[in-house]
Amino acid sequence: MGELTGNAVEGTLYWVAPDEFARIRNLAMPSVARARLFADLARLNTLYMIARAGSGHIGSSFSSMDMVAWLHLEEMREGDVYFSSKGHDAPGLYAVLTALGKLPADLMHRFRKLGGLPGHPDVGTPGMVTNTGSLGMGISKAKGMVLANRLQHGKSPRIFVMLGDGELQEGQIWESLGGAVNRCLSEITAIVDHNKLQSDTFVKQVSDLGELEAKFASFGWHTVRVDGHDLPRFAETLDGIRGVKKPKLIIADTVKGKGVSFMEHVAMESDAAIYRFHSGAPQAADYTRGAQEIMDRINRTLREARAAELSLETVERPVAAQPAQAPERLIPAYSEALLDVAAGNPKVVALDADLMLDCGLIPFRDKFPERFIECGIAEMDMVSQAGTMALNGLVPVCHSFACFLATRANEQIYNNATERSKVVYMAALAGLVPGGPGHSHQSVRDIAAMASTPGLTLVQPSLAAEVGPLVRWALETNTGSSYLRFVSIPVSVPYELPAGYQVQVGEGWVAKDTGTDVVMIAYGPTMATQAWHALDRIGGGRLAILPWLNRLDHDWLEEVTAGATTVVTIDDHYVEGGQGVMIGAALQRLHFPGRVLHLGVDRIPSSGGNDEVLADHGLDAAGIAKAIGG
Amino acid sequence: MGELTGNAVEGTLYWVAPDEFARIRNLAMPSVARARLFADLARLNTLYMIARAGSGHIGSSFSSMDMVAWLHLEEMREGDVYFSSKGHDAPGLYAVLTALGKLPADLMHRFRKLGGLPGHPDVGTPGMVTNTGSLGMGISKAKGMVLANRLQHGKSPRIFVMLGDGELQEGQIWESLGGAVNRCLSEITAIVDHNKLQSDTFVKQVSDLGELEAKFASFGWHTVRVDGHDLPRFAETLDGIRGVKKPKLIIADTVKGKGVSFMEHVAMESDAAIYRFHSGAPQAADYTRGAQEIMDRINRTLREARAAELSLETVERPVAAQPAQAPERLIPAYSEALLDVAAGNPKVVALDADLMLDCGLIPFRDKFPERFIECGIAEMDMVSQAGTMALNGLVPVCHSFACFLATRANEQIYNNATERSKVVYMAALAGLVPGGPGHSHQSVRDIAAMASTPGLTLVQPSLAAEVGPLVRWALETNTGSSYLRFVSIPVSVPYELPAGYQVQVGEGWVAKDTGTDVVMIAYGPTMATQAWHALDRIGGGRLAILPWLNRLDHDWLEEVTAGATTVVTIDDHYVEGGQGVMIGAALQRLHFPGRVLHLGVDRIPSSGGNDEVLADHGLDAAGIAKAIGG
Repeated sequence: MGELTGNAVEGTLYWVAPDEFARIRNLAMPSVARARLFADLARLNTLYMIARAGSGHIGSSFSSMDMVAWLHLEEMREGDVYFSSKGHDAPGLYAVLTALGKLPADLMHRFRKLGGLPGHPDVGTPGMVTNTGSLGMGISKAKGMVLANRLQHGKSPRIFVMLGDGELQEGQIWESLGGAVNRCLSEITAIVDHNKLQSDTFVKQVSDLGELEAKFASFGWHTVRVDGHDLPRFAETLDGIRGVKKPKLIIADTVKGKGVSFMEHVAMESDAAIYRFHSGAPQAADYTRGAQEIMDRINRTLREARAAELSLETVERPVAAQPAQAPERLIPAYSEALLDVAAGNPKVVALDADLMLDCGLIPFRDKFPERFIECGIAEMDMVSQAGTMALNGLVPVCHSFACFLATRANEQIYNNATERSKVVYMAALAGLVPGGPGHSHQSVRDIAAMASTPGLTLVQPSLAAEVGPLVRWALETNTGSSYLRFVSIPVSVPYELPAGYQVQVGEGWVAKDTGTDVVMIAYGPTMATQAWHALDRIGGGRLAILPWLNRLDHDWLEEVTAGATTVVTIDDHYVEGGQGVMIGAALQRLHFPGRVLHLGVDRIPSSGGNDEVLADHGLDAAGIAKAIGG
Repeated sequence: MGELTGNAVEGTLYWVAPDEFARIRNLAMPSVARARLFADLARLNTLYMIARAGSGHIGSSFSSMDMVAWLHLEEMREGDVYFSSKGHDAPGLYAVLTALGKLPADLMHRFRKLGGLPGHPDVGTPGMVTNTGSLGMGISKAKGMVLANRLQHGKSPRIFVMLGDGELQEGQIWESLGGAVNRCLSEITAIVDHNKLQSDTFVKQVSDLGELEAKFASFGWHTVRVDGHDLPRFAETLDGIRGVKKPKLIIADTVKGKGVSFMEHVAMESDAAIYRFHSGAPQAADYTRGAQEIMDRINRTLREARAAELSLETVERPVAAQPAQAPERLIPAYSEALLDVAAGNPKVVALDADLMLDCGLIPFRDKFPERFIECGIAEMDMVSQAGTMALNGLVPVCHSFACFLATRANEQIYNNATERSKVVYMAALAGLVPGGPGHSHQSVRDIAAMASTPGLTLVQPSLAAEVGPLVRWALETNTGSSYLRFVSIPVSVPYELPAGYQVQVGEGWVAKDTGTDVVMIAYGPTMATQAWHALDRIGGGRLAILPWLNRLDHDWLEEVTAGATTVVTIDDHYVEGGQGVMIGAALQRLHFPGRVLHLGVDRIPSSGGNDEVLADHGLDAAGIAKAIGG
């Protein structure tokens, strides 16, 4: 099975089997050298998982890896707990736990696949003690663990929680500090993986963290600072704080992407550049070059230790399927529409919560730097700022992922609404897919969380051509506030925008009309596309796309459902609180005599490939057809 | 009109007319003495407003009053802005603005009344520049104002924002600090009214603020500390920071209730006592004694200045109407039920976000102090702690007002839900009334914000007798999580729990059955009572109470609506995302052939007396009857 490594070959992926880890752990070596070796083997497996999955977070898995390895190999005792608050370093942690036999070895090959390892931690996975991935909750969670232990058990084990540095921009981190001091929760050791970069760029360019040590110390935490790759110093630091009767915090200076020279952030050409290894999979050549570099370092160490060279397993790198047609990309269409509107209206400003790349804001930032406000990972702060900007004459547009914007800033959005001003919210990454990142990022309840906000209209485009008209409606025509919901993944949609399309609040449009018996009502490219294909499976029908998520014109509904015996609503969202229930109540008032089915998400979203996840929820074309009885 | 003050008479309320303020402002006195006098006159009017309204926040209106008076009289220049982030010191600010002619004088007599002055600030009121009352948003809002000014205007006026010290427990405060430093928003001066108490008790007992100066300084703010009642020092402080090119923060040590000896927190007998003048109206005797003390001090100053004594207007103190029958009080019933369950299950712990009195937690805290966790004004932190407690074997119950719990911790509640553990949320002050506090506190969208959370069942009792069964169901029977929604005001309900009442998820019970033509479905004591009386007005009908807000048994619905020609759903919530829409969609699936009306809140809630507000929204018995056409 195993083969000796020579030169890594492009198109091949390399991974380390558990018995190889066992061999390394049994080598007679100083503990620091062994931990470094272990960490590099785990880096190799992390790189493998991400390359195989096609996505995942290399940078922060690598920056925290040396410390995670040390904690698990040398520091932690029976009962002690480790978890990552930022959570996107999950592949690194999976690699470590797999190497230690705490996670079934076969799962590693199913990272971001259905029934495998989700993109962010879930308690359904062995070794994961709490769900993270939404930022800022880690210290609160550690506190709950300690209090539960103290109440129920005599002994209270230690809790190690890894924080990101970008994560420190979240208010919950600071909200959670005081109580830990007042209750003297000395069981907690928080570690800041201070790798200086958040998703897009340098932390200091987003919201400078200032004097981190002074900040935590002023909140009463015992605070120390150390190089997070200098294991002897890290070990000394852990020794030094062990007896301290206070909650403890280690600021660990690290290098994002540590371990592969060209992935290290210090190798970036300028501070203004975009760091390339935050969340995507590496290109094939980058993978091979990076893997080779790690393998070479491992083998040098093994040779020095007079041990056999590393034995690796291999698998062919999966080839991503090419779509039959050019897929629709809504985010670039949004970029363009926003630029266009902003060019004509100097009042338009864009606020961002550290997702400028994902929200299509780079062109806006470059063209209107004075009107671009980077708020950092601070959704509450962003939304409240937008509120007073709106009261003072601007047209602010707030940007984030739907899962964070609608829920993290939920009350702040309502507070703005009660001021009867006009604020636009741009919510990307909405809906059930992509399924890779897991439920912390799959936004399938933002419609419910937002729909009752007075004066706020929720609307979602279903193809690129619809983006411009809807963005212009929100920014130029609508006098109230709007929530623009976007699917972020490219989708090959089978329909076109009808000729003469006009934005009419509460009215939709017919995307397919091959029968009147079954009428499907959907929104967004993902579900509208699946519905379109489902109609083919059941012999035809009508697909109506209703972009309005909390507005409904009853006349339009009556017209579009006339003559139907079955109406199927398809939510890219939980059924509860989604568009379908609104339509269902309206159909009662119209005394629609036929059958109405409400399809949508009805449980916690599964994580995996997009096709897998849609099928798993019965929301692919086959599942929809089956639900209808086709 | 005016009368000279001798001894204040119980049963009479005293207020100062604008011309009396004008006389005081024109006295030839040193500015400090004049500001003190002005502040005392404003205190008298604040006390008047609160006594007349029957509720309002004396303590923090008084602690900040000296500074608010000084800022408005001496410091602020044309274009400068002042607002309070905590917002419950609104009556104090109203008194100052009225005295300065910036607020129509007649509004003062309509504090917490419809069309008058809301309990917390609203931009619809002259002089109110942003809506506050939900805590922690003030610095973010100030930042938005500065950025809007800078972008659009050459000059950027100063923004003064008053913060509460309890409010500093909110994460958003700390989330908002960094950006202000990075953008050097030196226009902002934040003032912490450090009166040492939050709603129930001493801040230091809840979540000790620690070294406040060091905290703010570590975030890069220019921080100074001063006695907030020592106006010469306060003035010097303002002079000293004027040219500082950083955002500025003044920690002002103050006395809660300052100006009336027995209302001052320093007069409390022990730190463990409950401060009595946070939010309620003073008893008649307390009002008279307090007013007399302020009047005497004013007149002493006037005599020393050889000016005429204070001339006061009077009005009779309104007598609160006594209810015809003993009203239902759900919160005490909750207290009892929680104690009962907790006595039998040592795993039950209660977490509180600084509302232990309002949530009925005092008996629990006294009986199970080790199982009572006071989290402070920190809903996110509370909910995330509860999550890991649940994962580690406890049954945590989180307490707050519905308006904050469902929205401030919205994502944290969802995160817990994705862990499939069992957490109970107790949400008090739900629904349209009380109408006095204003829209920041009227929770009419929490059902929508919570209903789609997987595994979370929302349920609301409609009378005291129903509380115990539902609490026991949530804590003992239900294996998933629950959201218990409570109306906090006492209501004289005209119905009783049926004999043999049993908790059945999704099923309701019939509270009145005097006809089958019209069936009303409601929940909670407020709306169920109005519906009951509305049926009398239209000649009878059936009132079904459905405690389940996101669960519905279709068989029960079919049975309870059988034979009806009209079904009326009545939400104590926005219609969108409420119970009624869920019922409407179900009635379509049952092919209910009649008329369905969805009543509920359909715009931003008005603020005022409870009867006024219900009538204003068409949700009193008369309005409901009228909507049906009765």
